[in-house]
Amino acid sequence: MSTPTDAQRMEKIVSLCKRRGFIFQSSEIYGGLNGAWDYGPLGVELKRNLKNYWWRVMVHERDDVVGMDGAILTHPAVLKASGHVEGFSDPMVDCRTCKAHLRADQLVEKKGVKQCPNCGGKDLTEARQFNLMFETHVGASAEESSIAYLRPETAQSIFVQFKNILEMSRKKLPFGIAQIGKAFRNEINPRNFTFRSREFEQMELEYFCRPEQGMDLLEYWKEERLKFYENIGIASAKLHVLNVPDAERAFYSKGTYDIEYEFPFGRQELEGVAYRTDYDLSQHQKASGKSLEYFDEETREKFVPHVVEPSAGVDRTVLAMICEAYAEDEAPNDKGQMESRVVLRLHPRMAPIKCAIFPLLKNKEPLVAKAKEVVALLRPQMTVFYDETGAIGRRYRRQDEIGTPFGVTVDFETLGERDPALRDTVTLRDRDSMQQERVAIKDLAGRLVSRVV
Amino acid sequence: MSTPTDAQRMEKIVSLCKRRGFIFQSSEIYGGLNGAWDYGPLGVELKRNLKNYWWRVMVHERDDVVGMDGAILTHPAVLKASGHVEGFSDPMVDCRTCKAHLRADQLVEKKGVKQCPNCGGKDLTEARQFNLMFETHVGASAEESSIAYLRPETAQSIFVQFKNILEMSRKKLPFGIAQIGKAFRNEINPRNFTFRSREFEQMELEYFCRPEQGMDLLEYWKEERLKFYENIGIASAKLHVLNVPDAERAFYSKGTYDIEYEFPFGRQELEGVAYRTDYDLSQHQKASGKSLEYFDEETREKFVPHVVEPSAGVDRTVLAMICEAYAEDEAPNDKGQMESRVVLRLHPRMAPIKCAIFPLLKNKEPLVAKAKEVVALLRPQMTVFYDETGAIGRRYRRQDEIGTPFGVTVDFETLGERDPALRDTVTLRDRDSMQQERVAIKDLAGRLVSRVV
Repeated sequence: MSTPTDAQRMEKIVSLCKRRGFIFQSSEIYGGLNGAWDYGPLGVELKRNLKNYWWRVMVHERDDVVGMDGAILTHPAVLKASGHVEGFSDPMVDCRTCKAHLRADQLVEKKGVKQCPNCGGKDLTEARQFNLMFETHVGASAEESSIAYLRPETAQSIFVQFKNILEMSRKKLPFGIAQIGKAFRNEINPRNFTFRSREFEQMELEYFCRPEQGMDLLEYWKEERLKFYENIGIASAKLHVLNVPDAERAFYSKGTYDIEYEFPFGRQELEGVAYRTDYDLSQHQKASGKSLEYFDEETREKFVPHVVEPSAGVDRTVLAMICEAYAEDEAPNDKGQMESRVVLRLHPRMAPIKCAIFPLLKNKEPLVAKAKEVVALLRPQMTVFYDETGAIGRRYRRQDEIGTPFGVTVDFETLGERDPALRDTVTLRDRDSMQQERVAIKDLAGRLVSRVV
Repeated sequence: MSTPTDAQRMEKIVSLCKRRGFIFQSSEIYGGLNGAWDYGPLGVELKRNLKNYWWRVMVHERDDVVGMDGAILTHPAVLKASGHVEGFSDPMVDCRTCKAHLRADQLVEKKGVKQCPNCGGKDLTEARQFNLMFETHVGASAEESSIAYLRPETAQSIFVQFKNILEMSRKKLPFGIAQIGKAFRNEINPRNFTFRSREFEQMELEYFCRPEQGMDLLEYWKEERLKFYENIGIASAKLHVLNVPDAERAFYSKGTYDIEYEFPFGRQELEGVAYRTDYDLSQHQKASGKSLEYFDEETREKFVPHVVEPSAGVDRTVLAMICEAYAEDEAPNDKGQMESRVVLRLHPRMAPIKCAIFPLLKNKEPLVAKAKEVVALLRPQMTVFYDETGAIGRRYRRQDEIGTPFGVTVDFETLGERDPALRDTVTLRDRDSMQQERVAIKDLAGRLVSRVV
């Protein structure tokens, strides 16, 4: 259970996310659509940075992984073969008193009797299986055959295209296929802000291998993925690896690790790393009648490859980064008095804006002109933000709150009015230490690029 | 009408797209899902390059545009207010003879009688309106109120979040909100490969302004967008601007340009640039009861902003780039004889792989080691591909066909075995001219980066 302090902390984070344009409720002016979220100007940049970094590390920097991007609308045969049509469901009960729709495992038990957690009612329907997939109809006919599902995970489109990609990429085992994209689950009770939503984005790798490599690769990918989280600024002390016990794993999995993060609302899964054996490809081979076998030229064997899957949630990771980064400390205001400040200590590589640029005064044309020169200089290499409004301390504070790691101020020294030696230098301020140093404008890009890209 | 040669050209392009992993039919091993496509390893990179370049030009390089990323699942109230629930439909007829579902405007007229284009039948149903939106149910209850739509365009989520973004971004008019994301339309007859599909991706900018700025900004954005297409390698001679006549524009639009491209299957729209007046914001203001007005601090006026919308299709632009790039010419094989070759003359900035690296022989360890050094050197800056299999001419040909602009061969000169002055130099081959030149390995990155990023 989360403590009251944690709940308060979470409230502040949600409020900051809305106020500063990270995350808005979807369709908000119409009362919102439960379980769906929109990313605002800062949120979309944070999410892009995360996804681009994942793609760089998981695809571009590797010889053994290629990418793909499959459709969301999915043929029902795909999800019958994968087991989702039959088995992707939660047991659900309705409360006849308050009409709430509840997941059966969320009922409260008092004196051995199950009660509705909303109203305390005991008049509950029998549990029934509720399939979590969204269904729609494709084409102009209303026949059964026209059903399509919104994919509940990106993984299945990888399995279904395995043979096409194997043939065109000429890869040898072990090799992987990576995908980032949206998936949809009709959660009975979306909750914890963006953590459990009905529309979400996944970053999945299916890494195909020989059967005897599976257990080692499971370990390998668990370690790789832990490194990834550290590289985006999530402290390893807040990450936990759960070795999912036999009884709780999918029946086809020979081993699964859950990588969990200590959110303010509790320890929750960020990513699953699962050794799925040859279950998926075998199912699709059987159902489609198409061979999904691999021919090993060295051993002259033909077999269905096994697969290890690191599957991460984009929205969860964005939320974890924000929760991890959120801090309150003290900083001096323009009069030198200490005031409390909110700061997002995002990893510079992830921060939506890398550098803010301020002219000391907005009504001094040479300061403004010089500041705009600095903007033009840095912009080709990183996201920048120009701000001339308000006292300089307040401008810093606005950037601290959204995680901008660097602030550059153009002042009278920059113009060389006081000390010619300081001409064309600026103050560079570090968000976390709040230290300021004098840096030549021409050295700025070089100083910053390696830290933010 | 497309000529037989155009049809053949299109067939070759579709076949290349599948064979080399640009685009696959979705759910292909189960017979495919009509109107949905999967992007393979090369297609996903091409699409990423296009989207990233659009984002760079339209968001990052501008002071006056911010981005967002909204949910696909959309509250029905949003699409009632926008007019989609009522009016986003095509007239449709069924042929009672062959059971085909047809768009009314696709019927063939012979001697004044409408006939089915499939079977020639004349027994057709009356035309009825068929709404193009995909519908699904959200939550565990089957009530009417639980309907949600898959968004038919990304634009509406921008309008709905206008106020939130205005407040957090502190922008002054004119300013824009940009979005890239999927949208869905239940087309009666998907056709022309990925051109008209049921699931597609859009790149949309809503550029808000004062009413009197609308017509000028319409011209401005038309010109900006034409430049964009030239910058990604689409010849201006193949682009056409259609000034949509009054009678064919949406009733609320004061001016619309269609930017069309000469596809092998005919001249078709790539992008619409529309001056939509204050229609959308006014509709949402009325329907939601929330003020979507802007307060102009200089003039002290309060009003609903007008908007100019450049709306481009990702999939259509990817297809246009491939069609534009596809060429057949002649190249010498390894014996010096001329052979026909297929080459994708993609703009280097768009090419999925920027540089291919080949050791002359795969069984010469020093050549392989040096080639891998070059891979490691270039990889942090661009996508590279290492290939050691087959004759060198064949390896070039494989890269030509997927549009790789540069090829680097590591040969015995590189090892300094013949001429010490050539040690650590490689041949750099240009895809289009097929010219080769000798370049020092240390100069490679510098030579290539500015051309491919």
